[in-house]
Amino acid sequence: MVMYRCSTSLKFWKKWISSLLEFDATPSYQSVRDAADNLKGIVVRTPLLESMALNEKLGARLFLKCETLQHTGSFKFRGAYNTLSRLSAAQKKNGVFAYSSGNHAQGIALSAKMLGIPATILMPEDAPEIKRTNTRAYGAQVITYDRYTETREEIGARIAAEGNLTLVKPYDNYFVISGQGTTGIEIAEQLKEIQAAAHICVCPAGGGGLIAGTSLAMRELSPKTKLYSAEPEFFDDTRMSLATGKRLPNEGNHRSICDAIVTPMPGEITFEVNKVTLTAGLAVTDAETASAMRTAFDYFKCVIEPGGAVALAALLSQKLDIAGKTVVAVASGGNVDPVLYSRILGGEI
Amino acid sequence: MVMYRCSTSLKFWKKWISSLLEFDATPSYQSVRDAADNLKGIVVRTPLLESMALNEKLGARLFLKCETLQHTGSFKFRGAYNTLSRLSAAQKKNGVFAYSSGNHAQGIALSAKMLGIPATILMPEDAPEIKRTNTRAYGAQVITYDRYTETREEIGARIAAEGNLTLVKPYDNYFVISGQGTTGIEIAEQLKEIQAAAHICVCPAGGGGLIAGTSLAMRELSPKTKLYSAEPEFFDDTRMSLATGKRLPNEGNHRSICDAIVTPMPGEITFEVNKVTLTAGLAVTDAETASAMRTAFDYFKCVIEPGGAVALAALLSQKLDIAGKTVVAVASGGNVDPVLYSRILGGEI
Repeated sequence: MVMYRCSTSLKFWKKWISSLLEFDATPSYQSVRDAADNLKGIVVRTPLLESMALNEKLGARLFLKCETLQHTGSFKFRGAYNTLSRLSAAQKKNGVFAYSSGNHAQGIALSAKMLGIPATILMPEDAPEIKRTNTRAYGAQVITYDRYTETREEIGARIAAEGNLTLVKPYDNYFVISGQGTTGIEIAEQLKEIQAAAHICVCPAGGGGLIAGTSLAMRELSPKTKLYSAEPEFFDDTRMSLATGKRLPNEGNHRSICDAIVTPMPGEITFEVNKVTLTAGLAVTDAETASAMRTAFDYFKCVIEPGGAVALAALLSQKLDIAGKTVVAVASGGNVDPVLYSRILGGEI
Repeated sequence: MVMYRCSTSLKFWKKWISSLLEFDATPSYQSVRDAADNLKGIVVRTPLLESMALNEKLGARLFLKCETLQHTGSFKFRGAYNTLSRLSAAQKKNGVFAYSSGNHAQGIALSAKMLGIPATILMPEDAPEIKRTNTRAYGAQVITYDRYTETREEIGARIAAEGNLTLVKPYDNYFVISGQGTTGIEIAEQLKEIQAAAHICVCPAGGGGLIAGTSLAMRELSPKTKLYSAEPEFFDDTRMSLATGKRLPNEGNHRSICDAIVTPMPGEITFEVNKVTLTAGLAVTDAETASAMRTAFDYFKCVIEPGGAVALAALLSQKLDIAGKTVVAVASGGNVDPVLYSRILGGEI
C-alpha cells in the first residue's frame, strides 16, 4: 500500500484533495482558468463572428460567440468534460448520472465516452428528437420522464443512489460552472486579438451556469464589459432574482420554444456568482427569439436553437441601447429539430 | 513630378510593377503565400470542424472547412479583396466591374466598399434573392441578365469598356486564384496544429479558382494529400477535362440546385493549375448534395448552400474509399434562400 502511494504522483494527490475540498465551493476566475488548462486541445475554440452587413444595419459592432460549433452542438460539453475528467477512478468505474433537457445530456454522454465512463441520462419525454437520438448515439443509456408531472431531481437522486452513480448536476456544480466559463476566457482573448473591447456581453441563462462561468472570466479579463443574462419571457427567473436579490421561481404553467433553458429557478451556486457579476437580466418573447434565429441564418449561416438564440434576440430587439457600442451575444447551442427550424425560417413563429 | 516619385516608397513601385507583370501569370504557392500576408487580419480564419458522432458513423475522420463563415458567406471574399487591394489608384477611382451568380458579386461588393471603390455587378435574373439583396446592401450597383439566352462575358466586356471599369473575372485571374488559395494554407496549418494529416481534400469547383489556389497551397504544405474537385452532375466539366487533359464544356440544357457552380467550362488559368495539382474530379447528384446539406445541419449546425455542399456530398456518398482515412471537405458558401433550405431540410429534394 505504501509502495502504491509512493508510486502515485504528487500531482495526482493534490488534484484529488483539491477535488474533495472544492466540489461544493463557489467557482472563481482561478477555477475557470484551471478549467481552460484542463480543456486545452479537447474543446473547440469556437469562432467569434461578426457580419459587416449586420453591423451596418444595427449601427453597432455585434459579435456572435458560436458555441453551436462546440462538440455536441452546445457549450455544455465544456463543463461536462471538465467535471468527468476530475472524477476518481472508483467514480469513473461506477459511472455517472445526469438529468437534462438534452444539451447537458449530450455533453455528458460524449465526455463519458471519451473517458471510458458508463453514463445514464434522464431526459424529458418531450425533449427534441435530435437531442435524444444524439445522446443515445454517444453511447449513453437514456431514461425519459414527463417534465410536467414529475420532478427530475427526485427521480434522479433515486436512480443515482440505487446504482451508486455519481450525479453530475447540469449547473449547480463547481467544475461544471468553471468549464462553461472557458467560453468567457475565449471571448476575452478573441476580442483582444483583434484589438476590440466589448461594452456589453449577453449570455442565455437556464440554471445560469454558462453566464456564471463566463461572467467570472469576463470580469477578470475585460472588467469594463457589462454582463447580462437573457431568458425567455415567463422563464425569466434569473432576471427577477437579480432584480430582487433573492432566488425566485418562475410561476404559472407557461410553455416556450426555448426547450433548453426553461428551468424552474436559478441554481444556488450559480446565483451566488451571478448576483455579484451581472448588471441585470433580460427577457425576450418567442417571436423575438425566432427572429434572431432567422437573422443568424441570413447573416452568420449559423443554425441556433431557440434557447441558444435568446441573447442575440435581446440585443437585436433593443432590450439595451447598443447604438455605437461593441456587443457580444453568446449563441449557446444549435440542437434544433429540422421541422421546427423550417417553421421558424418560414416565419410561422 | 520627380519629387512626387521620390516621396513614393520603393515598396509601392515594386508592387505596381509586379502587378503589371503578374496579372496574367499562372499562380504559384508563392503567390498564394503573398495573398495570405495581404489578407492577414482582413479575412476570417474559418474553423476546420469535425464531429465525433459523424466520424464514428463514417468510420473515417472528416473535417469540414467552413468558408460559409467567411465574410459575405463564401470564400469569394478572399480572392476579391486580394485583387481589389492591388489595383492602381486610377483603377480604384474609375471603379470595378464583375459578373457573378452571386458569391463573387458579394465578395467584390464588400471588398470594394471596404476599399472605397465603386462597384458594378452583372448577375443572372434568377440568382437567389439573398445574393442580389446582399450585393446591393454592400453598396454595389446590380444589373441583371438572362443566363439561359445571353452571355455574361459579352455583356460584361461592353459595360466594362464603356465605363472604363476594371473587370475582375470570377476565377481566371492571378490574384483571385491566389486569394482563394489562402483557404488551403489555413487547412494545412489547422491540421498541423492538431497533429493531423489529410489523405484526401475535396473542394467544390465552378470555374475552378478555389480548388486551384487551395491545391497549390496543399501540394506545398501537405504533399501527401490527394486533391479532388467536386461538381454537380451535368456540370462536371472539370472532371471531364481532368480525365481527358483538355478543357471541355458541359453539354445539354440541364439545371441544378447548385446555382453557384454551374459554370460552362473550366477557366484557362485555373485549368493550367488543376491539371497538374489534382488527382481527379468527382460528380454528385442534386439528391446527394441535399443529403449533405442535411448532414451539415445535423452534425455541424452549419448552413451550406447547394453549390457549397458538393465536396461534402462526394465524401458522404462514398465517391472515394474513405474508410479509416482523414479527409477534408471545403464547404465553400452558405448563401441559400430560406425557402429552398427548408424544402431540403424537409427532404423534398
